[in-house]
Amino acid sequence: MMEKKKVVCLISGGIDSTTAAATLKHEGWGVYGLTMNYGQIGKKECEAAKRVCEKLGIPLTYLDLTDLQKVMQSSSLVNPAIVMTETFTAPIIVPNRNSIMLSIAIAFAYSIGADAVSYGAHLSDRRDYPDCRKEFIETFLAAERLATERDIKFLAPNIGILKSDVVKMAKHLGVPIGLTWSCYKDGEKHCGRCESCNNRKKAFQEAGIKDPVKYEVSISAGKGRA
Amino acid sequence: MMEKKKVVCLISGGIDSTTAAATLKHEGWGVYGLTMNYGQIGKKECEAAKRVCEKLGIPLTYLDLTDLQKVMQSSSLVNPAIVMTETFTAPIIVPNRNSIMLSIAIAFAYSIGADAVSYGAHLSDRRDYPDCRKEFIETFLAAERLATERDIKFLAPNIGILKSDVVKMAKHLGVPIGLTWSCYKDGEKHCGRCESCNNRKKAFQEAGIKDPVKYEVSISAGKGRA
Repeated sequence: MMEKKKVVCLISGGIDSTTAAATLKHEGWGVYGLTMNYGQIGKKECEAAKRVCEKLGIPLTYLDLTDLQKVMQSSSLVNPAIVMTETFTAPIIVPNRNSIMLSIAIAFAYSIGADAVSYGAHLSDRRDYPDCRKEFIETFLAAERLATERDIKFLAPNIGILKSDVVKMAKHLGVPIGLTWSCYKDGEKHCGRCESCNNRKKAFQEAGIKDPVKYEVSISAGKGRA
Repeated sequence: MMEKKKVVCLISGGIDSTTAAATLKHEGWGVYGLTMNYGQIGKKECEAAKRVCEKLGIPLTYLDLTDLQKVMQSSSLVNPAIVMTETFTAPIIVPNRNSIMLSIAIAFAYSIGADAVSYGAHLSDRRDYPDCRKEFIETFLAAERLATERDIKFLAPNIGILKSDVVKMAKHLGVPIGLTWSCYKDGEKHCGRCESCNNRKKAFQEAGIKDPVKYEVSISAGKGRA
């Protein structure tokens, strides 16, 4: 039997990256999960990453990089002094997060001899998040090839589909949706008010699928952009 | 008076990055030092970074990212089970280190509104370290512009000069050379045997300048490539 190809999957514990990892596992890749605490307020996502990976049978490497919050104070997802808005605004951006996380994922892939890295970006991210666009991925990957002199592939299974389609795919693949965490806050339940909760609610609504997670505020204000 | 332009300088505590930072300070930049513990064996360099920055009057942000060693086990600079060689060999490479550190430096620059980032790569690094080459820098920077939608400049004051010229510049600028740390190991003194010590000794020899740091083995074996 041929050995499985290996991919390092960034898994935040949200529905996008979890579904990306589940998709690759379904396609026959040997998936190595990687999750990071970068000092975000919504640190429950790290616990969610552990839960979903356990359920999906994916080994997970957890990195405590809490100190990164020192260089990310411009973001409302890290700095509690900045108001967290219900729809997208510039302070929601965690500066250079994808570049940092993908660089680390590539280091891991290099170190264990994996063939590829993956992240969960999808088409609905495109408008507001420049580091979720194909143009970024392609140029970044060219830089990483020069840096590592390895041909590490870059996979983004959701890059061509909307968040509502990611939800459908999650359902189709049997992703443990109820174990994921999308909220930017740190409450008992998903707040139901932050940009991420709004996007999630809108995506489930558009997909016509019931979201098993509990929200503090469950009525969608129609603010998401799935 | 016009406000100084700000640059985030990666400072490892070695002579290259310290001299790069001193050069930029001399040129009138407002320098913000950034140093990281990534779980390297030679962690004395972080202490050295603190000492040189204090001496140079550069504010320093220190990040404890020790957990990164989990994704860097292929390197002899991180994994004590891998033999540390006296000249360059592949395991000396810390996978994707510059990409990771520069991504983090750019996040910091974004967060504090700095105009540029800087690192210490020089011409003598070119042969063995692909992420110290101009080709990498240019492509990486193009990716970062797409990721951040900011025009953060990239400075590498040593990129066109040999390590021996960096040493001359250090002397010229009054860099506290005796406070720097270049050794990959963690002894009382510089070991004088590792690749980095050998490169340092060779550079001082070629520059005709006496190195004030103490080595366990002081006679240069002529193994460096300054």
